Amino acid sequence: MRATGVRELLRLGANESPFGPSPRAIAAMSSQLERLAWYGDPESLDLRDALAQKHACDPEQICIGSGIDDVMGLAVRAFVAPGSLVLTTRGTYPTLNYHAIGYGGTLAFADYRPDGTPDLDALLEIARGRRPSVVYLANPDNPSGRFLPAAEVARFYQALPHDSLLLLDEAYADFVGNADLLPPAFEDRLIRMRTFSKAYGMAGARIGYGLTSAANVRTFQKIRLQYGINRNAQVGALASLADAEFRDRVVAETARARADYYALAAELGCGYIESRTNFVCLDMQSAQRAVRVVNELLKRGVWIRKPGAPPLDRCIRVSVGTVPMRAAFARALRDVLAEVPA
Amino acid sequence: MRATGVRELLRLGANESPFGPSPRAIAAMSSQLERLAWYGDPESLDLRDALAQKHACDPEQICIGSGIDDVMGLAVRAFVAPGSLVLTTRGTYPTLNYHAIGYGGTLAFADYRPDGTPDLDALLEIARGRRPSVVYLANPDNPSGRFLPAAEVARFYQALPHDSLLLLDEAYADFVGNADLLPPAFEDRLIRMRTFSKAYGMAGARIGYGLTSAANVRTFQKIRLQYGINRNAQVGALASLADAEFRDRVVAETARARADYYALAAELGCGYIESRTNFVCLDMQSAQRAVRVVNELLKRGVWIRKPGAPPLDRCIRVSVGTVPMRAAFARALRDVLAEVPA
Repeated sequence: MRATGVRELLRLGANESPFGPSPRAIAAMSSQLERLAWYGDPESLDLRDALAQKHACDPEQICIGSGIDDVMGLAVRAFVAPGSLVLTTRGTYPTLNYHAIGYGGTLAFADYRPDGTPDLDALLEIARGRRPSVVYLANPDNPSGRFLPAAEVARFYQALPHDSLLLLDEAYADFVGNADLLPPAFEDRLIRMRTFSKAYGMAGARIGYGLTSAANVRTFQKIRLQYGINRNAQVGALASLADAEFRDRVVAETARARADYYALAAELGCGYIESRTNFVCLDMQSAQRAVRVVNELLKRGVWIRKPGAPPLDRCIRVSVGTVPMRAAFARALRDVLAEVPA
Repeated sequence: MRATGVRELLRLGANESPFGPSPRAIAAMSSQLERLAWYGDPESLDLRDALAQKHACDPEQICIGSGIDDVMGLAVRAFVAPGSLVLTTRGTYPTLNYHAIGYGGTLAFADYRPDGTPDLDALLEIARGRRPSVVYLANPDNPSGRFLPAAEVARFYQALPHDSLLLLDEAYADFVGNADLLPPAFEDRLIRMRTFSKAYGMAGARIGYGLTSAANVRTFQKIRLQYGINRNAQVGALASLADAEFRDRVVAETARARADYYALAAELGCGYIESRTNFVCLDMQSAQRAVRVVNELLKRGVWIRKPGAPPLDRCIRVSVGTVPMRAAFARALRDVLAEVPA
């Protein structure tokens, strides 16, 4: 915003929820602002109890972090020794890569399949040959929005070398629903990561968690910041969990928004990628055009982003907005595409 | 609280502010709860601008962290290689030690002087002999409350080996006032750490910062969590900085509270340590008695703590409370001391 001078952006670039936190979470956090003078519970006991109920597991199998980024940092610090290998998909959510490089790891990449799905076969082939310490998979994937069925992920996990740990980023899992997700599993070689940033609308609060074995959690407890979690983030997360109705409404409205974006793509003659998340990739046919479209939208006060690596780099990625935000985006995109030739 | 079954504690054990956050900070955070759906600014630009004004420095000389603990973690990660030495005072604020051990460092300790002041001569002798990567000094010190004059700290810093970095924990600096503090200095070998947890009453928000060279800040920017800071913590910190009147009232009321604790000590025939912080150490004459007093107070719903290492382990440490909290503490301590023989 400082760079462009635009002070009021239509924020559709960071997959934040346009529906905000649950009103119950806001009420709970509001009532606790005075108590921000107190440190939060360093063990997040109440929140872990509530999450243990949600995931039918033991609180000792849950590690709270200040967002999935924090949990990933703990996993890399604990399991990636200097010189050891981290395997991921080129162009997927990049934060793991920063952690891996920061702790002296080496990166190996598989490419997306041509349709923008993470290529489990290619990942598996590299993993078998090079035996990485950590393998990263985002499911649903960001930035493609693609979702791999639970059975495929389960087969992939079982086929990995037994000294590789699967870091499964499920930031967008709440948009998928339990029936389609990998069944609960709390094992040393598997860390599943969830967040309150997306469906729960609390990205700014910085709170997420890892689901894994109690042994892994004990390791993380030794190295995490003891008082790392904002007290009001704990309060808001706890209240959010209790408001299933709000979350269901967000998930339903997000599905409607995706359908609106698909319809817009059809109207404008663009391809799109079917998404199980709160964002959609629209195909601009070339990376060059996608960059121009992003820049022209920004001039009109619409902030979106685009994937950086092939084959997705010919797409723009737009986050789900409210009905008026979607309408404003549609107007701006129509204008821009009329000016930016294919 | 789970362990004792006591649900309502008089919290005087964590040096939290009993005066809460500034009403302006609460109003600002309250108005921004809806926007917790948005990520905070990963660069904390507005907050760093405001802090740069406060400290008459460049925003590039400021690194925001989720509390001083976070900033210390960054410093240790950046400057403590496995096997290298970290020098501190035995029994002072321990979080640096956890970071140092976690990153493979080795600890060396100087003892407090008999009066509970960090022993700069002893630290210097060890530093000259063993050339630590990092030397830690809390000033004012926790848990003693002692404050070393700026001139002594400056001499100490200058006398350290030139490959040692001084990590100066100034969590309680706001209770001291600028006139008595080390003058501004933003050098590679010096990291000064400040927090919104104490005088600003925002411990639960997790926000603090380091003041150092721009080169050090660039290093920290590479390894810190990109979106690690809670958005509302940024909002509240910014509003707190603008409310100097509130902070001055907190500082003045904290001084009155210390005087009340000194008077209570005199009434009960205990020694005490003069403090420049929001807590006071009261001398219970033996470590054993101090432990008993802490436990007996807890049974009465009063939560305080005690230092763990000599010579301070014969003390209890009580945080500043409001007038009614001080009165409740005084009543409880009178009762307990009547029962626990010297």
